[in-house]
Amino acid sequence: MPHIAMPPELAPGTPGLFQYRPETGRHLGELAETLLRNPHSMSRGDRELIAAYVSAQNDCRFCSSAHAEISAAQISGGRALVDKVLDDLDSAPIPPKLKTLIVIAGAVTKGGHEVTDAMVDAARQAGATDTEIHDTVLIAAAFAMFNRYCDGLAAIVPDDPAAYVGMAQMIINDGYRMCATGH
Amino acid sequence: MPHIAMPPELAPGTPGLFQYRPETGRHLGELAETLLRNPHSMSRGDRELIAAYVSAQNDCRFCSSAHAEISAAQISGGRALVDKVLDDLDSAPIPPKLKTLIVIAGAVTKGGHEVTDAMVDAARQAGATDTEIHDTVLIAAAFAMFNRYCDGLAAIVPDDPAAYVGMAQMIINDGYRMCATGH
Repeated sequence: MPHIAMPPELAPGTPGLFQYRPETGRHLGELAETLLRNPHSMSRGDRELIAAYVSAQNDCRFCSSAHAEISAAQISGGRALVDKVLDDLDSAPIPPKLKTLIVIAGAVTKGGHEVTDAMVDAARQAGATDTEIHDTVLIAAAFAMFNRYCDGLAAIVPDDPAAYVGMAQMIINDGYRMCATGH
Repeated sequence: MPHIAMPPELAPGTPGLFQYRPETGRHLGELAETLLRNPHSMSRGDRELIAAYVSAQNDCRFCSSAHAEISAAQISGGRALVDKVLDDLDSAPIPPKLKTLIVIAGAVTKGGHEVTDAMVDAARQAGATDTEIHDTVLIAAAFAMFNRYCDGLAAIVPDDPAAYVGMAQMIINDGYRMCATGH
């Protein structure tokens, strides 16, 4: 049960919190839309994979389940590849650049000071641009927020895996702005 | 030195990062403005104190220094009271409701699952509303993000304490929207 009284018609998880408090939900939806869906050198599937990885590290069941499905539907390799990354990043068969960026995201998840020059050098050696490094750090930082927001208020977390597949399709079709504001 | 190439004319800390990438900085500035400065049952000084406390727990020198000054300039008790809260929350002479909310913020900082029913009950017993509990959790979660964003990119952190006093006055006068977009 959530720590605050949430009207039952609201969506589960963070989207329901966006709807509960639209003054902040609007900006959070815009941030997610910009980071994860705006045109970018990194694919939507890859950016969602970073979000899913960070959310799994933070033990946020709602966000890791949702973003794993959103990534799986847009990444070549699908759900099997996403699960490999979440289970064991080192051995997961993903491109070296993406792997070095996920290592940076994992460090940010532990704390900002955990990111080392060596991690950033490795990403740059693998071809990452400054914008890609910046956005990876900010995606990881943003999910430090979204995960704590969701679990810190004990938002509703659906048990049925199919619920996340449906939510993923809605996000892929309509985006994060829509899930925050309903239009 | 920052992990990415930042033009030297940009501001230090997170405001410089907002300016570096205005696509995301715009929404981050709006979020900070809404959470910390919009009309609210909690004073600006109290909300900034939560931001300073969380940033100190996350060992983010830029954010804890800046928000401590912004709180100090707006809270009765000034810098001495802010320092007491940052040094030892238990013994700090602040109202019981604010103290229970800062306890919740401290739990969110460790992780969303750390917030207990007992913490929320204590806040409610002390008079906190659902909106105050919600916004406290989201302020703490947002600073989990801002702190990791700042330190994860090794943004410039001024050494001179006077620099933070000047920044605090700019924020108090012009707000977070201005520090993100320059207008």
